[in-house]
Amino acid sequence: MIEAVVDALRPLVGDRVSTAESVRAHHGRDEGWHAPAAPEAVVFARSTEEVAAAVDACRCHGVPVIAFGAGTSLEGNIAAVRGGLTIDVSQMDAVLEVNVDDLDCRVQAGVTRSALNKVLARDGLFFPIDPGADATLGGMTATRASGTNAVRYGTMKDNVLGVTAVLADGSVVHTGTRARKSSAGYDLTRLLVGSEGTLGVITEVSLRLYGLPEVIAGAVCSFATLAGAVRTVIEAIQMGIGMARLELLDEVQVEACNRFSGVGLPVAPLLLVEFHGSAVAVEDQVATFAGLARAHGGAGWQSTTDRAERDRLWAARHEAYYAGKALRPGALAIPTDVCVPISRLAECILDTRADIDASRLVAPIVGHVGDGNFHVVVLFDPDVPAELDAALRLNERLVARAQAMGGTCTGEHGIGCGKLEFMAGEHDAATLAMMRSIKSALDPTGILNPGKVLPVADG
Amino acid sequence: MIEAVVDALRPLVGDRVSTAESVRAHHGRDEGWHAPAAPEAVVFARSTEEVAAAVDACRCHGVPVIAFGAGTSLEGNIAAVRGGLTIDVSQMDAVLEVNVDDLDCRVQAGVTRSALNKVLARDGLFFPIDPGADATLGGMTATRASGTNAVRYGTMKDNVLGVTAVLADGSVVHTGTRARKSSAGYDLTRLLVGSEGTLGVITEVSLRLYGLPEVIAGAVCSFATLAGAVRTVIEAIQMGIGMARLELLDEVQVEACNRFSGVGLPVAPLLLVEFHGSAVAVEDQVATFAGLARAHGGAGWQSTTDRAERDRLWAARHEAYYAGKALRPGALAIPTDVCVPISRLAECILDTRADIDASRLVAPIVGHVGDGNFHVVVLFDPDVPAELDAALRLNERLVARAQAMGGTCTGEHGIGCGKLEFMAGEHDAATLAMMRSIKSALDPTGILNPGKVLPVADG
Repeated sequence: MIEAVVDALRPLVGDRVSTAESVRAHHGRDEGWHAPAAPEAVVFARSTEEVAAAVDACRCHGVPVIAFGAGTSLEGNIAAVRGGLTIDVSQMDAVLEVNVDDLDCRVQAGVTRSALNKVLARDGLFFPIDPGADATLGGMTATRASGTNAVRYGTMKDNVLGVTAVLADGSVVHTGTRARKSSAGYDLTRLLVGSEGTLGVITEVSLRLYGLPEVIAGAVCSFATLAGAVRTVIEAIQMGIGMARLELLDEVQVEACNRFSGVGLPVAPLLLVEFHGSAVAVEDQVATFAGLARAHGGAGWQSTTDRAERDRLWAARHEAYYAGKALRPGALAIPTDVCVPISRLAECILDTRADIDASRLVAPIVGHVGDGNFHVVVLFDPDVPAELDAALRLNERLVARAQAMGGTCTGEHGIGCGKLEFMAGEHDAATLAMMRSIKSALDPTGILNPGKVLPVADG
Repeated sequence: MIEAVVDALRPLVGDRVSTAESVRAHHGRDEGWHAPAAPEAVVFARSTEEVAAAVDACRCHGVPVIAFGAGTSLEGNIAAVRGGLTIDVSQMDAVLEVNVDDLDCRVQAGVTRSALNKVLARDGLFFPIDPGADATLGGMTATRASGTNAVRYGTMKDNVLGVTAVLADGSVVHTGTRARKSSAGYDLTRLLVGSEGTLGVITEVSLRLYGLPEVIAGAVCSFATLAGAVRTVIEAIQMGIGMARLELLDEVQVEACNRFSGVGLPVAPLLLVEFHGSAVAVEDQVATFAGLARAHGGAGWQSTTDRAERDRLWAARHEAYYAGKALRPGALAIPTDVCVPISRLAECILDTRADIDASRLVAPIVGHVGDGNFHVVVLFDPDVPAELDAALRLNERLVARAQAMGGTCTGEHGIGCGKLEFMAGEHDAATLAMMRSIKSALDPTGILNPGKVLPVADG
């Protein structure tokens, strides 16, 4: 079947369709720990029309279609678990328009966030969503990604204004308008955001932009207790202080950063905060936040608007993942991703820390505390099966704990194939059935990224 | 058929199901100018279970189902154009939970926005979305409503965290989690927001809340030109000043307000602005905005943080609709609702003003200028058919103008049955087909609010 698809595409794309072993292998593996699954062929598309032709060929021959951007997903979201054709959109890397007055832009799906921000900086603008990796905007849209700025700027859900996508029948849809808001029909944009390529292949994205802040201030503060750090954050959000970033490192992560980056921080829960705005507003925000931090056991408060100084303050955060992994050279990591109501965050992290310590695994914790989203980097030796098993059990308990608190198994990484087993614990049967109805209606033969997002129905 | 539905519900709800003429008539008319269409019966539901039973009875007997909150829609969104059963949720008026630390709450669909804000004020919180009418949260969710605060706080799309809804098959879904963000599956919340009762009947809504600002400042400023007012707004947004409200009145609306409220404002385009935040931040915002306004021909700048004074400044805006209608006693009004990219707003309003003047109709303009959304209150004498015809042609040209600029036929009122004809001008055939696929999958027999949102497909 794949041969027929390749033959159909060859006249259109020439040698941009490939069945070479190395190309296939590269497209079967993301940055997570899951087993790779290579597609049978890869096409490097350069236009929406080529994507439509590829989907149409796959539809005719019943071949699975997997969309691929930078390959930086973590839950096997791009793994070709049932073979098929991977559509690599990384060559669709044009910034199509930037509208300064409207604070929006339109990009092809393969533009990376760093490439976009380079272009935008010329006009004094930026796009805030920053997952750890330099992902593509198409991939970030498909995964409903977020990052360290979500407490102020939201997630991809809040910043995608519209998409162009190819549906399973080969048709091309354009969702949204250029207006800032609309009540004209179903919100197809938000339906495609986070659908992980199972409802359509995203080829273009329109994004909301922001003016670069006049002043950026960074700050760090250690806390006697994790609860004190979280309490500070809760009250700061209630007061509407408007922090742009709010990151929490637990004491294990702080120690890892001290060893890795030599930052010499007190081994205690640490908040890293960033403020954006006018000079006057930022000064006011910093002072108010510092006062709250002091009231909740914060110590060693340092803030600065100097860029070099700020970069130094944030170095620990930026290197946190590598610092964590360096605690056990050669180990692999399960990057967990639960998100809970912020009122339960301290409890969830403390219970998880106790669980980690009881399991004897090494696992630092770092979190987007303003959203209630945190990551445990669970290290395991791939040559010791019992360790992987213990790490997986730890993650299962963590997800169950978060879901019992009204939270989610994934704040920003998506379901892929890695978290299918947790969907039934999060959505009841009727709600999952509603998702399946939509999937069946839009992709009746199931060719779009099969084996992802929706677990197989019981019975 | 309706008799069978009434008989099925009677044992469950007693005399809360009615076929009385007056009850039916009340539920067939909203606050718009469209012809009323009464349902055959009305049930006053008190729980999700009762709504599910009503939907299930209607499904069994092939009877249309229309959800009804406060009846304040404007486009016939609640009209029973094919008869059937209206489910009135106004007695489902309980605020089920308020979580101060998480800044969220859960309410039954019949809670009105003013009732909610009364409860929230006890905890120093508020819910910002404020359509003109005192609508229910269920209705506001179904219509994807917004209001004067959208420039800062977004629309219902941004502030609904999850819903409970009854689907066409009688099943009950719970969308979203209590976490602030999630990447676990399709965004059913956003699919139901704005679906106007055509995909499910919303029975409960979870909402994002905000702390009441420490300081609120109001300001007014007149401009020599409309373009100067819009330019001020564009630059203020680019600078991230963070205005909470930004309303524009054109000179016809200002004159109407002068006559109606005796506010004695210069007859020129007027901006009304509101700033929320700490004392220091608000002072900074006011000063920066005032400077921008001056640079763009603003005059007569007045600002105040005094509540009585602020209320006086905003009186003109609050009474604008009545002031407009008072220009022609006895006239009816078509409240238009286009929204365009803000870069095109001045041009769109000026072209529309010229069009109004050429048509010899009386029609003041008031707009949520930060979003690019504005309303023309087109007055017509219901006893003069040529006037209604002229008013409708004016609205058609306005919608075509907005859509040609990349905008939408409705920023916040919804499609209902009043704007069905404009959907094909806004969404291409494939995109409309995608909406129809979803509708067919979730409501295969078409019992949910038939004749709304989606125009009948061609051919």
